[in-house]
Amino acid sequence: MIRVGVNGYGTIGKRVADAVDVQPDMELIGVTKTRPNFEADAARRRGYDLYAAIGDRLPAFEEAGIEVAGTLADLLDAVDVIVDCCPSGVGERNREIYRAHDVKAIYQGGEDATVAEASFNARARFEAARGADHVRVVSCNTTGLSRVIAPLDETYGVEKVRATLVRRGGDPAETGRGPINDVLPDPVTVPSHHGPDVNTILPDVDIDTLGLTVPATQMHTHSLNVTLSCEPDTASVRELLREEDRLFLIPETAAIDGAGKLKEFARDVGRSRGDLWENCIWEESINVVGRDLYLFQNIHQEADVVPENIDAIRAMCTDESPADSIATTNRTLGVGL
Amino acid sequence: MIRVGVNGYGTIGKRVADAVDVQPDMELIGVTKTRPNFEADAARRRGYDLYAAIGDRLPAFEEAGIEVAGTLADLLDAVDVIVDCCPSGVGERNREIYRAHDVKAIYQGGEDATVAEASFNARARFEAARGADHVRVVSCNTTGLSRVIAPLDETYGVEKVRATLVRRGGDPAETGRGPINDVLPDPVTVPSHHGPDVNTILPDVDIDTLGLTVPATQMHTHSLNVTLSCEPDTASVRELLREEDRLFLIPETAAIDGAGKLKEFARDVGRSRGDLWENCIWEESINVVGRDLYLFQNIHQEADVVPENIDAIRAMCTDESPADSIATTNRTLGVGL
Amino acid sequence: MIRVGVNGYGTIGKRVADAVDVQPDMELIGVTKTRPNFEADAARRRGYDLYAAIGDRLPAFEEAGIEVAGTLADLLDAVDVIVDCCPSGVGERNREIYRAHDVKAIYQGGEDATVAEASFNARARFEAARGADHVRVVSCNTTGLSRVIAPLDETYGVEKVRATLVRRGGDPAETGRGPINDVLPDPVTVPSHHGPDVNTILPDVDIDTLGLTVPATQMHTHSLNVTLSCEPDTASVRELLREEDRLFLIPETAAIDGAGKLKEFARDVGRSRGDLWENCIWEESINVVGRDLYLFQNIHQEADVVPENIDAIRAMCTDESPADSIATTNRTLGVGL
Amino acid sequence: MIRVGVNGYGTIGKRVADAVDVQPDMELIGVTKTRPNFEADAARRRGYDLYAAIGDRLPAFEEAGIEVAGTLADLLDAVDVIVDCCPSGVGERNREIYRAHDVKAIYQGGEDATVAEASFNARARFEAARGADHVRVVSCNTTGLSRVIAPLDETYGVEKVRATLVRRGGDPAETGRGPINDVLPDPVTVPSHHGPDVNTILPDVDIDTLGLTVPATQMHTHSLNVTLSCEPDTASVRELLREEDRLFLIPETAAIDGAGKLKEFARDVGRSRGDLWENCIWEESINVVGRDLYLFQNIHQEADVVPENIDAIRAMCTDESPADSIATTNRTLGVGL
Ligand SMILES: NC(=O)c1ccc[n+]([C@@H]2O[C@H](COP(=O)([O-])OP(=O)(O)OC[C@H]3O[C@@H](n4cnc5c(N)ncnc54)[C@H](O)[C@@H]3O)[C@@H](O)[C@H]2O)c1
Ligand SMILES: NC(=O)c1ccc[n+]([C@@H]2O[C@H](COP(=O)([O-])OP(=O)(O)OC[C@H]3O[C@@H](n4cnc5c(N)ncnc54)[C@H](O)[C@@H]3O)[C@@H](O)[C@H]2O)c1
Ligand SMILES: NC(=O)c1ccc[n+]([C@@H]2O[C@H](COP(=O)([O-])OP(=O)(O)OC[C@H]3O[C@@H](n4cnc5c(N)ncnc54)[C@H](O)[C@@H]3O)[C@@H](O)[C@H]2O)c1
Ligand SMILES: NC(=O)c1ccc[n+]([C@@H]2O[C@H](COP(=O)([O-])OP(=O)(O)OC[C@H]3O[C@@H](n4cnc5c(N)ncnc54)[C@H](O)[C@@H]3O)[C@@H](O)[C@H]2O)c1
Repeated sequence: MIRVGVNGYGTIGKRVADAVDVQPDMELIGVTKTRPNFEADAARRRGYDLYAAIGDRLPAFEEAGIEVAGTLADLLDAVDVIVDCCPSGVGERNREIYRAHDVKAIYQGGEDATVAEASFNARARFEAARGADHVRVVSCNTTGLSRVIAPLDETYGVEKVRATLVRRGGDPAETGRGPINDVLPDPVTVPSHHGPDVNTILPDVDIDTLGLTVPATQMHTHSLNVTLSCEPDTASVRELLREEDRLFLIPETAAIDGAGKLKEFARDVGRSRGDLWENCIWEESINVVGRDLYLFQNIHQEADVVPENIDAIRAMCTDESPADSIATTNRTLGVGL
Repeated sequence: MIRVGVNGYGTIGKRVADAVDVQPDMELIGVTKTRPNFEADAARRRGYDLYAAIGDRLPAFEEAGIEVAGTLADLLDAVDVIVDCCPSGVGERNREIYRAHDVKAIYQGGEDATVAEASFNARARFEAARGADHVRVVSCNTTGLSRVIAPLDETYGVEKVRATLVRRGGDPAETGRGPINDVLPDPVTVPSHHGPDVNTILPDVDIDTLGLTVPATQMHTHSLNVTLSCEPDTASVRELLREEDRLFLIPETAAIDGAGKLKEFARDVGRSRGDLWENCIWEESINVVGRDLYLFQNIHQEADVVPENIDAIRAMCTDESPADSIATTNRTLGVGL
Repeated sequence: MIRVGVNGYGTIGKRVADAVDVQPDMELIGVTKTRPNFEADAARRRGYDLYAAIGDRLPAFEEAGIEVAGTLADLLDAVDVIVDCCPSGVGERNREIYRAHDVKAIYQGGEDATVAEASFNARARFEAARGADHVRVVSCNTTGLSRVIAPLDETYGVEKVRATLVRRGGDPAETGRGPINDVLPDPVTVPSHHGPDVNTILPDVDIDTLGLTVPATQMHTHSLNVTLSCEPDTASVRELLREEDRLFLIPETAAIDGAGKLKEFARDVGRSRGDLWENCIWEESINVVGRDLYLFQNIHQEADVVPENIDAIRAMCTDESPADSIATTNRTLGVGL
Repeated sequence: MIRVGVNGYGTIGKRVADAVDVQPDMELIGVTKTRPNFEADAARRRGYDLYAAIGDRLPAFEEAGIEVAGTLADLLDAVDVIVDCCPSGVGERNREIYRAHDVKAIYQGGEDATVAEASFNARARFEAARGADHVRVVSCNTTGLSRVIAPLDETYGVEKVRATLVRRGGDPAETGRGPINDVLPDPVTVPSHHGPDVNTILPDVDIDTLGLTVPATQMHTHSLNVTLSCEPDTASVRELLREEDRLFLIPETAAIDGAGKLKEFARDVGRSRGDLWENCIWEESINVVGRDLYLFQNIHQEADVVPENIDAIRAMCTDESPADSIATTNRTLGVGL
């Protein structure tokens, strides 16, 4: 059993904890919170041991009547791997603590690539993390791009990728974030940093990305163009993508027109938290014009990196094959629609 | 076992079906859909028998590869009670069909009160539906108002209620509805129809309501003023409301600032679909100034009427007491936070 | 000629500058900006002399090719009155500077009432500012409430005011502000601070207010209830309010359903910046039920305090009567629809 | 003097009317409205003669106290050119009426290209409308794309254009339109119809477009990629675009991050209705990578076609050169920032 802790029980951390909790070869030792808010309460209701991320906040938890098992240091002493799910930049500051406690650590995509030995995506770059002590699971957008570009590159060759990333302004509970009623070039300089981030996973792909931020909270939307090295027909590209584990091709009959209905579908089929771990690609949108492939995909920013974190733990701590790890992760979570 | 069917597997219908499915004394015979869209697909994945709401649409389901057990007529022949969850106004048109099939019927709040023998709310008006053949469960807003006014009236006496209902523009998947970036007096005439609707449940309460519609999809927000007949202190009102089954008092330590975090909490504690069947009242907001009580409450429009539908079935088909029915419903669904 | 400067050429400052510029008895000496952004550029295009609010930023303006006439100190030396339109709290910090330069100063509603000798509203409390050196023009919401409560109190007597203020999340250009897709009790404690702020203008009015914040940028919406001391009929209340200078009764035939169409109307009739200096009250919404008056009004947060600033200047620097000042302000700006 | 009428005084019609009104060689005879709403009121306040678009609605205008000069038929008898600004599809139905009255007609981009002899853009296809009787001014998006592609094609040669159009859900006053909190592939099939529409102006350009709709009302945003036939440096492309009349390069120092600040700038410099007739291109975003040019541009959907309508009138009714017409239009409206 791989003993796992989660530092930072927020949007990503709570989902990683849930996913670890259902793995046959992992044990969730505990999670940390900085404050005794509703998320701390909910962690306890789920039966997770709670640790104070910041030592001197212990009294605040007591006052709120929320039981705490110790501090981050205690948690680190009890685990093989810590999954850092703190806000961007905090992970890097935590690295020394993890090293001092001699635990392996996984960081999220908000950290620079330099935080870790390797950047990770299960489909496209599993082995890079094999046995490593510090690994970064790339961001939701990079994960979503890598999953779709990798099979295209392997099968047809990719000459150039151009993608416009229409990003949600904030997650559903982030009430302090805007914009209201605006579309923001973000960053305004082109190409954006997302392309180079994809290159940490797929180093040889020529990719230019553009980022926008809009007043929506549910999912990111990618408008994707891939110039291929050959001219496959549309049907065979659809078939190729349909065969991929973590891609969901939205059928035309589903009558799903955006993130609202996608997430409604996820809730309707009983998905925990309504999570969509898969890239959601509108089948009708997949079209090849000459060597230019186009498609629209939606990425559930809160969820798609979750199975990747699980696979990264196995890559770091076991010699299980990528295929076996991915299969276990998919089966236990219920990935695949 | 009470055999139950749901006509109109949409926002309300899917939730009523799920709730019926977990009742010890009810059996979900099936649900109807007009089109083989993602909701029909999901109903089948949940294992619900699906009936074509409109007979001549059967071939469309076949083409989409979605198995259908028959038509609405077949469903009506097999049930004791049909819960009509069709769009506003359609329920009334369906009444003759239900009568012809000699089934009891429940209608939703989108219908006029005249559609049924009685309007229903479990807390405030359970017995009105006892043994009735046609009952209307009042709307999400009326349900939310009745639940909080009833105990106040019983305990302190209510002289006058004034409520501003800040309503969500559409449900999360209703992409065709606005407004974007506006606040609409809706209706612009004051007082609105919501007050008289509350009087179908609490006939003697003097209540004036004002409606607004805003660009949000998650919950309604009520700004409530109740002039009481006496001057209780704030603490005792909080206590009174805290004791109510279907009211959730949001504690200050939870740090929940709106619908986003409320629904995040619901998902965090594992609520199916992230549903909040309870009125969610900010405890800090409950305040008595002289005889004027104020509070803010959020109503999850998709969910609060669901336990009410279950209790209405029991009121119509059994002689179970209100307390027993409510307790069973609450226990099976997990109402109470 | 009263020589006027504006410190802080932002949302309010730019409008006060424009308004001062068209007064027959005032001269706009200049405005300050902290950065050479688009607003600084626009100020120069309008021909306003620009002063650097922060001395050592002068070079930044030069680099951007935007001409500057000096610093705040130079501006203060040249004016009789400075209108402080800095962000909340900055005004208070500026007070000592204004005193040191021995200029009269007007502050905005983001400052505490204690910043000045008197709080000001032209309709309800003109004389309080007569001859004063430091005056605060109350906030957009307080201005909007005072204008409508004052005539009601004078004519019918006001027993109690209860108002729910549905506030825009940010001004149209404030892209960093949320919420997206939420309604926030703000503040969550009830009653809110807005009521006591109204009492700085109308000390004897019994008023409880509740605040909400929504994802809209154009205007605030007030859901207003006034319990009167008598029972006037609806028609006479409409008539009373229609006669007020700075109230606009939206006629039913206009088919204006919210802020979008209201501001469209303002642009259609040629209003500079599409500004609405008047409270915009839906005539149909004005209704008297017993002694309870209800109405919906929209407040253009960027604009309604502008004529008030002009009148405050006259109250401080002249012995002109309230009626004369208000008439001049209204005529020069074009107040009245 | 060219006598001009506007049929359909809505979002586009009111702006075309204002623009006609300030042309030295044109006379605005009148405008039509179907209902006596706020726009009809505003037209009269501007002094425009108002005609009832639908004959039997005359009494409704009288009741509302809004003076009407006649019906559409009367207007058509008095003009040389009618500019049809009716909702999509209505223009086509009106064509026979215009023919029957023997007036030249301009249609807007909501109509199919087949409605007219020629599709028009002043920069890219002025002469196509010379002397024609029925001309279509292409849509806001097509206008915006044509203006930027034309000079690139002339100067560098265009091999391929790929554009993602992030479209506003509705205009600011269109409260019935969504989505709230969603991003919709619209149309979900790729490429969208916008590319072929650009080919009605630039027939030889190879262009693929993708459309999305978002919860914003102020402007469209284009994420544009143009593969050029050569490899110019970024600076020279910026220079080329800066020289174009109806392109505005947003300077970095302006600190404009989206549509909110862009429109604020338009209002700040005194633009009527805050209109932006120019494509607004973020200068920093213009970047050449190999032969791939990228940029972000915002299109004010309500305004950019307005100068085009004026130039189309001259192309149809005079032998003025494109350059002279464009110069007159720009000067009278104030195009150029
Ligand atoms: N939310 C997304 O869309 C998303 C998607 C992919 C990757 N990521 C990345 O995941 C990481 C976490 O993001 P998130 O969205 O879950 O953030 P979040 O704000 O939802 O959660 C962060 C959690 O960390 C806690 N925290 C803050 N400081 C801490 C500290 N010093 N020690 C321990 N805990 C601390 C916070 O209380 C919070 O519970 C970031 O790197 C982010 O870039 C986020
Ligand atoms: N959504 C809410 O917020 C809410 C809250 C409380 C009450 N209600 C009321 O519940 C009722 C249902 O509303 P909803 O929001 O679930 O609507 P919905 O549109 O989500 O679902 C209605 C369902 O009925 C189906 N339908 C349409 N015509 C039909 C027909 N002729 N026969 C059978 N099925 C048909 C639709 O396909 C859809 O699946 C309405 O009366 C509404 O006013 C809705
Ligand atoms: N925007 C509204 O809705 C509104 C309505 C009524 C009253 N108010 C009040 O008006 C005041 C100004 O608000 P606003 O919305 O115009 O803010 P704003 O942010 O739009 O403008 C403030 C301006 O002050 C400048 N500034 C910042 N620090 C400065 C300094 N030290 N010296 C000089 N200038 C400085 C900023 O650059 C900006 O141009 C606040 O008190 C606010 O509460 C605002
Ligand atoms: N709004 C935009 O963003 C935009 C941009 C470019 C082009 N267009 C095109 O311009 C045209 C007008 O669009 P709009 O946005 O101005 O629409 P709109 O709805 O704002 O205005 C249309 C006007 O036509 C009037 N009308 C309706 N039926 C009529 C009839 N039978 N006879 C006369 N008038 C009638 C309406 O009352 C309204 O005043 C459409 O073809 C549209 O596609 C719109």
